[in-house]
Amino acid sequence: MQKPSIPKGTRDFGPAQVARRQHIFNVIRRTFESFGFAPLETPTLENLSVLTGKYGDEGDQLLFKVLNSGDFAKDVTADDLATGSKALLPKVAEKGLRYDLTVPFARYVAMNRGTLTFPFKRYQMQPVWRADRPQRGRYREFYQCDADVVGTDSLLCEAEIVLMMAQVLGGLGLHDFTIKINHRGVLRNIYQALGGESRETDLFVAIDKLDKIGRDGVNKELLERGFSEPTIETLFALLTVEGTYEEKLQRLLAGFVTAGVEPDGARPDAADEDAAANYRGLTELAQVRDLLVASGFRQFDRLEFDPTLARGLSYYTGCIFEVKINNVQMGSVSGGGRYDNLTGSFGLPGVSGVGFSFGVDRLYDCLEALDLFTVTGETPTRCLITHFDAESGRAALPLLAQLRAAGIPAELYPDAKKLGVQFKYADAKGIPLVLIMGPEEVAAGVVKVKIMQTGVERVLPLGEVVAALTAE
Amino acid sequence: MQKPSIPKGTRDFGPAQVARRQHIFNVIRRTFESFGFAPLETPTLENLSVLTGKYGDEGDQLLFKVLNSGDFAKDVTADDLATGSKALLPKVAEKGLRYDLTVPFARYVAMNRGTLTFPFKRYQMQPVWRADRPQRGRYREFYQCDADVVGTDSLLCEAEIVLMMAQVLGGLGLHDFTIKINHRGVLRNIYQALGGESRETDLFVAIDKLDKIGRDGVNKELLERGFSEPTIETLFALLTVEGTYEEKLQRLLAGFVTAGVEPDGARPDAADEDAAANYRGLTELAQVRDLLVASGFRQFDRLEFDPTLARGLSYYTGCIFEVKINNVQMGSVSGGGRYDNLTGSFGLPGVSGVGFSFGVDRLYDCLEALDLFTVTGETPTRCLITHFDAESGRAALPLLAQLRAAGIPAELYPDAKKLGVQFKYADAKGIPLVLIMGPEEVAAGVVKVKIMQTGVERVLPLGEVVAALTAE
Repeated sequence: MQKPSIPKGTRDFGPAQVARRQHIFNVIRRTFESFGFAPLETPTLENLSVLTGKYGDEGDQLLFKVLNSGDFAKDVTADDLATGSKALLPKVAEKGLRYDLTVPFARYVAMNRGTLTFPFKRYQMQPVWRADRPQRGRYREFYQCDADVVGTDSLLCEAEIVLMMAQVLGGLGLHDFTIKINHRGVLRNIYQALGGESRETDLFVAIDKLDKIGRDGVNKELLERGFSEPTIETLFALLTVEGTYEEKLQRLLAGFVTAGVEPDGARPDAADEDAAANYRGLTELAQVRDLLVASGFRQFDRLEFDPTLARGLSYYTGCIFEVKINNVQMGSVSGGGRYDNLTGSFGLPGVSGVGFSFGVDRLYDCLEALDLFTVTGETPTRCLITHFDAESGRAALPLLAQLRAAGIPAELYPDAKKLGVQFKYADAKGIPLVLIMGPEEVAAGVVKVKIMQTGVERVLPLGEVVAALTAE
Repeated sequence: MQKPSIPKGTRDFGPAQVARRQHIFNVIRRTFESFGFAPLETPTLENLSVLTGKYGDEGDQLLFKVLNSGDFAKDVTADDLATGSKALLPKVAEKGLRYDLTVPFARYVAMNRGTLTFPFKRYQMQPVWRADRPQRGRYREFYQCDADVVGTDSLLCEAEIVLMMAQVLGGLGLHDFTIKINHRGVLRNIYQALGGESRETDLFVAIDKLDKIGRDGVNKELLERGFSEPTIETLFALLTVEGTYEEKLQRLLAGFVTAGVEPDGARPDAADEDAAANYRGLTELAQVRDLLVASGFRQFDRLEFDPTLARGLSYYTGCIFEVKINNVQMGSVSGGGRYDNLTGSFGLPGVSGVGFSFGVDRLYDCLEALDLFTVTGETPTRCLITHFDAESGRAALPLLAQLRAAGIPAELYPDAKKLGVQFKYADAKGIPLVLIMGPEEVAAGVVKVKIMQTGVERVLPLGEVVAALTAE
């Protein structure tokens, strides 16, 4: 007899977990929609021609490929086999599983460019698959929740990302968070302030590891990559400027001016009196802050301008974001940024956009660690009606229908088993109320209502049960 | 330059489609939950050892298989290759995509038998994948919405399936439907009434095609399969009994008695005076009807006992169901039945259950054909605020925040483009209200509100806008 199992890195979600996850999705969806993002769903299967080459070599390895249907090996020769899996792949697989939501979104925008109205604001909450080595907190199938705007370079979009991040976390009861913001232009100016030594991407990659390997580790890596000790010292002086959001902007500005960094232009709508306007990164960060003030955002103690935030080698070109929950040991629960050429590889260049993403699994783990889930039973049922025999069971059916019509999920225990069995069922499923309708109750036209948590019982006339439970 | 596309038989769902589909899911979910069904989600990837052999040879062919990650061809020899795809498959693929929701549910129940409380009522709404030849209305990726109870043989479950079918269809505005019900026991008794000629399954398979190939076609097929002409005549006399639900039960009973069909036992709780109780199928159908009457079900004109309903060669053993929408050319939108051995192949025998499923794509097509969708725009946004320049844009931000806080999805057009462009955006997205905040309005402390559908404009004091729109 076969012992059933599920693939490594995948999970079943039972009733209580689905209910909790649904709560997270609902908070995110409501927030996205209140900001005017419209839902998009793309297929699980994408052509490998769309996916391959978009996530780097490592990503190509981690793509799940789907075997062509039918006689998949019909075009494979012994020579192909001798050449190995890589040469074989295009002959046996044309499709793969969605690896993220960004590439399918770009593909969708490029495919529908003729009919879409820009700016196009979409959100997408769907699972993605990666053939990663499964480990604690890392799964092969997991959900992403993305929101992106394409077709505008307005910084209002960046400000609204901060607003949405704060609204989702607040909506989930996660109040002790830090939204980190930086700008690729600031990182570029910092690189320029170092005198253009060695390679810019090497610098970003090293900075990106600061969280993981610490200052000493980054120091070592930069030395190995050809940066000199004095340069690294200048770097850390810039990266570790202290103060408020505005003070850091001013201090970096002073640093850039001192270092003779070539101004990289202001946005045309920047205020002239703002000296930081000479540097695009600093200007835009100041503007995002102004837009937040004007929008009534009050949580500046939770918004940190962090010049060390780099977000890897990704395609970002403007503001970048990352969110941490402070009182839990957990990686970032949200992140994003502006990119200038999302759809370029699909033949639609020059579409600027900005987007961000929530990691539902991490949010779930944070809420669980902080005990912030309201108690969820193993069922949506609020009321179990117990009964003694076929006759009392049948007598309960009109009440059952009335409870459901009143919006109270309800069940009649389906068999006339012993009362103890029926109560054990309610207990195991976390059903809060049990209504007892035995022959005595039926004869008297009453129902005994038991609150499972307290054990308190009361007797109500049959005709008043629905009203009483609805009122509670 | 690569021209992006999606795989055959898959679909992107744009904003309006997602909103409409979400409406269908919500109605189904609310109904399932009000009847006490708890949500379950299983992984997209299942081990092929779980999936293979569960759907017949054709099903095995239609399973999407996922290539093992890494050097998938490392164990493949030239001999394997010469033997062909079928021999090759186990060496290159261990996992497949979910093909339906029933097998994963059975696998889940078997895996978690130790911790689940029975009866276990679960619903599941997830996509499934089949490598079918794509055609109109048939996709390679599509959603199923299943609800099942396992661990009880109470006929209340059957009655509640009828209640849920009616509630979902009513909730969607689909009022002209027929719920067909039959019982495998009735089909078996009909076969017995024919004198046990030829094979029982041949009879079911032929009857199942009545809808498609008509009486003449079935006649021909039965002759080919060894049934005699008089037998076929007796068959059709039984299959085409007329009258109400109860009349058909009585007429079939008379037919069975006349034909000398051996009684196959009554349920212990069947009323003694009910002669139909001698035949399990007829008894149970009568009991389901009684339970519906007791539950206050009033739509008996839409519940048809149809002795020709067979539902193929599937694993059903008791009541079977199928739902058609009458005023649309469309296959069944829902179906199900009772089975006695769902989890047997996973080492958990003797678990009786009953379940049913909605086809979301078909419901969608019905609603569209009958024009029953409320108009859905391309965005959840109810209000677009237009502006003229950075200053009036900034002045609009507090209003924007207030609208959203009041639960009104709202956007500020992100760029200070010409008013015509901003209006065109609202129009293209189907945004019903446009709020105009130019320099004049800002100076006067007012907002011009335009209803897009009628063109009606009115001017409101800034402080009254949210209250006015909330009231509407």
